[in-house]
Amino acid sequence: MTENFTTRATVAGLGDMGQALAAALLRNGFSTTVWNRTPGRAGSLTAAGAREATGLAEAFEASQVVILCVIDNSAVDELLAAAGDRLRGRTVVNLTNGTPRQARELGERVTALGAEYVDGGIMAVPPGIGTDQSFVLYSGSESAFKANRDLFEAFGGVQFVGEDTGLASLYDLALLSGMYGLHAGVMHAYALIGSEGISATDFSALLVPWLRAMSGFVTEAADRIDRDEFTKDVVSNLAMQAKAFPNLIEASKEQGVRPDLMEPVLRLFQEWVAKGHGDEDGVGVVRLLQERA
Amino acid sequence: MTENFTTRATVAGLGDMGQALAAALLRNGFSTTVWNRTPGRAGSLTAAGAREATGLAEAFEASQVVILCVIDNSAVDELLAAAGDRLRGRTVVNLTNGTPRQARELGERVTALGAEYVDGGIMAVPPGIGTDQSFVLYSGSESAFKANRDLFEAFGGVQFVGEDTGLASLYDLALLSGMYGLHAGVMHAYALIGSEGISATDFSALLVPWLRAMSGFVTEAADRIDRDEFTKDVVSNLAMQAKAFPNLIEASKEQGVRPDLMEPVLRLFQEWVAKGHGDEDGVGVVRLLQERA
Repeated sequence: MTENFTTRATVAGLGDMGQALAAALLRNGFSTTVWNRTPGRAGSLTAAGAREATGLAEAFEASQVVILCVIDNSAVDELLAAAGDRLRGRTVVNLTNGTPRQARELGERVTALGAEYVDGGIMAVPPGIGTDQSFVLYSGSESAFKANRDLFEAFGGVQFVGEDTGLASLYDLALLSGMYGLHAGVMHAYALIGSEGISATDFSALLVPWLRAMSGFVTEAADRIDRDEFTKDVVSNLAMQAKAFPNLIEASKEQGVRPDLMEPVLRLFQEWVAKGHGDEDGVGVVRLLQERA
Repeated sequence: MTENFTTRATVAGLGDMGQALAAALLRNGFSTTVWNRTPGRAGSLTAAGAREATGLAEAFEASQVVILCVIDNSAVDELLAAAGDRLRGRTVVNLTNGTPRQARELGERVTALGAEYVDGGIMAVPPGIGTDQSFVLYSGSESAFKANRDLFEAFGGVQFVGEDTGLASLYDLALLSGMYGLHAGVMHAYALIGSEGISATDFSALLVPWLRAMSGFVTEAADRIDRDEFTKDVVSNLAMQAKAFPNLIEASKEQGVRPDLMEPVLRLFQEWVAKGHGDEDGVGVVRLLQERA
């Protein structure tokens, strides 16, 4: 562990995100090695002081911290297969998109190679890295996380979510789910409004505060779920919602708007009502989502 | 038009919402007649000073403003079929859930009966009526709206959205779409997090600010739609999103969470990419939703 490293961190994988990560490290004064499978991606980084490794072995050996940011976790698999003993004593930080299961498997492989493993979920687009528009979730080795927190802070906000290696990915995907649900609702809303030629910007003056007012729902739903309590103090139960919801589908069709994004909500409501949960708050549907297929 | 009315407003339909509306009128000092098809719903209202009509004819004749709040617009149809000449010179305010097409048809029928028509979309649950948790969208006759704004303010916030009778319903359903999308995303997120036994309340500390930060997205999306511009300044294009999205579906299945609420988002992304729009911002999907089936 007293090995002398050439640089503090290596960034392997120089797509848009990998380049943004390496640039953030360099801006913050960390000596950085960069590597990409296909050459020609490192120009602006070497100009900013990065060292470009001529091969993967050199990239792994160069640094105490090896950050992987490649297309998917099967690409990570391939990199690890070529690692041999070169990751021993290092910390591998995997910021590649993937699933909790993949993260756990990779964590075991990396540990077997004699390295510490930290998995990360980046909640930002590449231009946001290193700004207050970015935060990264981490899980896995807490000691390795703490030892390298200074590096991680170069990327933006930092959140360690647990030693279970899969958690960063799980939190990442759960936050993305919330985002995609919100996006889906907003897209459907704008499609409806646009069907009458109404300006989306004018309508957003109503939509933004309406959605902001929903943060109460988000915390109340969490409380119901944690208490496993879906029938007390219900003001609009699932049976009522399932009855009113077809208006939304029918109106969408009448306005020439595809109901694809709204139909599954209605189907789940109807399914849960049919299973005898019509008196529940809509939040009860989370239990239907969790039923094993 | 110089007719003497017994009361200022009639509320026809005393479900939870109708009762809440009548109670709000009474609290604000408006003389109110109430009526329900099946008797026995008016007790607390008559105790608070309401006059109970013994029949629909009397309910219609009693007031200058006749507020309809019944189960659906076919029930409104039936009430109008029984109206004869009794609505002449009055203002009918229909606060029943329905579609824009239904509202337009009812507006024509009511106008033909010699009355003014205002359609309304209530953005509140019954216990919220008359509080700052409530607002109601109105469309149709602007003069009738203005003449009765004092009544409407008893229900909460007031928003007139246009003389096209269908618009209150359209805005209402568009706002509900946004809400249901947000709910769907939040439900999926909590189902994922719960699959590892993590407290939803703990996770909400990340989810709430994450979703709040999305209001920028909501206004930027509106701007793109109004400019019909989906390819400039794209930081995460649809092709990239469609490539990363299967992780979310796969991880959900691995965690035992049904992907019903997320799959249609991916399918629309893939369909729009296949149609040659992979270089667009995700907001471009609104144009796919608007394609006529």
